[in-house]
Amino acid sequence: MEDQITLIDPLDMHVHFRQSPQVEYFAPLTARTFSGALIMPNIVPPVRDATSLERYKADVQFATRTENFVPFHALFFNTDLTEEDFDHLDILSVKLYPDGITTNSEGGVASFDDPEVLRVMSIMEERGIVLCVHGETNDFVMDREKNFLERYKFWAEKFPKLKIVMEHITTAGAVKLAQQHENLFATITAHHLFITLDDVVGGMISPHNFCKPIAKRPEDRDALVEAALEINGPNPHKFMLGTDSAPHNKSMKESACGCAGVFTAPIALQLMAQLFAQNLSEPQPSLQRFVSCNAKAIYKLDPEDLSDKVVTLTKSPFIVPKEYHGVVPFMAGKEIEWSVQRVA
Amino acid sequence: MEDQITLIDPLDMHVHFRQSPQVEYFAPLTARTFSGALIMPNIVPPVRDATSLERYKADVQFATRTENFVPFHALFFNTDLTEEDFDHLDILSVKLYPDGITTNSEGGVASFDDPEVLRVMSIMEERGIVLCVHGETNDFVMDREKNFLERYKFWAEKFPKLKIVMEHITTAGAVKLAQQHENLFATITAHHLFITLDDVVGGMISPHNFCKPIAKRPEDRDALVEAALEINGPNPHKFMLGTDSAPHNKSMKESACGCAGVFTAPIALQLMAQLFAQNLSEPQPSLQRFVSCNAKAIYKLDPEDLSDKVVTLTKSPFIVPKEYHGVVPFMAGKEIEWSVQRVA
Repeated sequence: MEDQITLIDPLDMHVHFRQSPQVEYFAPLTARTFSGALIMPNIVPPVRDATSLERYKADVQFATRTENFVPFHALFFNTDLTEEDFDHLDILSVKLYPDGITTNSEGGVASFDDPEVLRVMSIMEERGIVLCVHGETNDFVMDREKNFLERYKFWAEKFPKLKIVMEHITTAGAVKLAQQHENLFATITAHHLFITLDDVVGGMISPHNFCKPIAKRPEDRDALVEAALEINGPNPHKFMLGTDSAPHNKSMKESACGCAGVFTAPIALQLMAQLFAQNLSEPQPSLQRFVSCNAKAIYKLDPEDLSDKVVTLTKSPFIVPKEYHGVVPFMAGKEIEWSVQRVA
Repeated sequence: MEDQITLIDPLDMHVHFRQSPQVEYFAPLTARTFSGALIMPNIVPPVRDATSLERYKADVQFATRTENFVPFHALFFNTDLTEEDFDHLDILSVKLYPDGITTNSEGGVASFDDPEVLRVMSIMEERGIVLCVHGETNDFVMDREKNFLERYKFWAEKFPKLKIVMEHITTAGAVKLAQQHENLFATITAHHLFITLDDVVGGMISPHNFCKPIAKRPEDRDALVEAALEINGPNPHKFMLGTDSAPHNKSMKESACGCAGVFTAPIALQLMAQLFAQNLSEPQPSLQRFVSCNAKAIYKLDPEDLSDKVVTLTKSPFIVPKEYHGVVPFMAGKEIEWSVQRVA
């Protein structure tokens, strides 16, 4: 058991920074310990064209100006996108939301095999732009991801050169599907590696563990942990950390009608260190792959583009603060076994 | 389609009245429209002996003194109970809680085949006292009732003359089991006839729809509705209304760690009228069985013991109040198609 883990260029490949003024509080909490992050476009209105992208990039740049941090952006998938648009857009990926499936996803895709949807995917395939997908149907909450898998399969087979990232996967079935298709990849959140539906509604009701997709069954969580830890040998750049960290004000969560989203940005690396160290005698190599190398390979990130951040984690207890700027984080008030010792 | 439904002696065979001072607010809300109710004993400390029973009976009697209402009591199942105790206890049933499974169930039964547990059941069988059970294991939240069914089966077969009421059932499997064993019966709540897990965590998180057992899948809800409505012909006194109405203060529900329980006492009959009228061209006979006759048959209630209350419901919209004494009811602020027109 090691007492220290050093990570080079940790990346969070799925994060919500919100918009002004919140972005100024929340973006730095990611930028402090991560070298880069892929920032989701479902703000209001969504980041769906060059103009809104430039504006949002400026906001994020300003919010993270004091940190050694590289923000990457995803564009909100829409069928107005033309080949010409892609010539000018400085994006790492395009994020597809089924219409109305999660926070601020109105105006997303209504039909997964709409010819216009497929046209945009075809352009992306040609140009090597990664497609990120919130993969849920409108079915019964425990079936939404499972029932979406056939759509992933359809796209993966129709566009064999298109890299598709199944975002924030929560089921054993999604892990398996990623392993079966060369062009399917997945992000896994920090919290889905820890919780099941029991942690949402199994004891008391816990709005701060409530997110979309909802945490599933214990065997699903176990499959995610196996995939992240590479229990059955290295996964060839399949799975990467994407926290889906999503700050919502305490009063928006603890209400008669609470928002979906778990906030983990400032504690995600500590949680990962704990999980990997508890399960592996040599946690560093697998964790380095999960929080950085796999993302670099999938997105073909140039090491020179990154900030060469070195984060040292140490096995010493860290009590999670009860709030960050009015937002209650995952595991608020509880102890994580690992702390961030140094960021260089 | 009838526009009026008259019910004689409606009964709520599973309700939580809380204790002083709350009992004085909540008991009357049941006593106003119900002729009688079976009051659950999981207060603090639980109603587990003659002394605590007498005290609680007095509190309930006082709280409902102005209403034409018959309170029935259930005793908290415990292995201190002797044959002699049963000579003196004025109870309708004994309620078994697995240890720690729900609100105030500490000190419940830890092992379902403990000889001492079976000894008490054997006395109850001999004396014709009904056993009510909160049937959940400590497994994954969606499996708790399903995994408990084998225990019901074990008891039902071991004590063929013991009437066992599976309380607040939520699954198609439980409906089927009740139909397979002569001595198994079940209560169904009002809210489980309307909601699924989607209404708890499928959209926003809804603490006021959160209860134990948790609402399950759509096909489970459909099976409960079929059983209550007697879609496949009259059920021979198998299923009865037991609202499990459980008031928790708004602030105890809308919190980082919200209590389990749905409050339906003052709206349960209106909800039932709506459900039965929407689904049956002649709703009255089935509804009369579900809210009264079946309970009378199962518990062998003497009609003379009851209050002969006549409740007339009419098809005219009723807006559910947003709060009752600090408690947010089920469907707060929403419209139910039926109202209570007259209680005589």
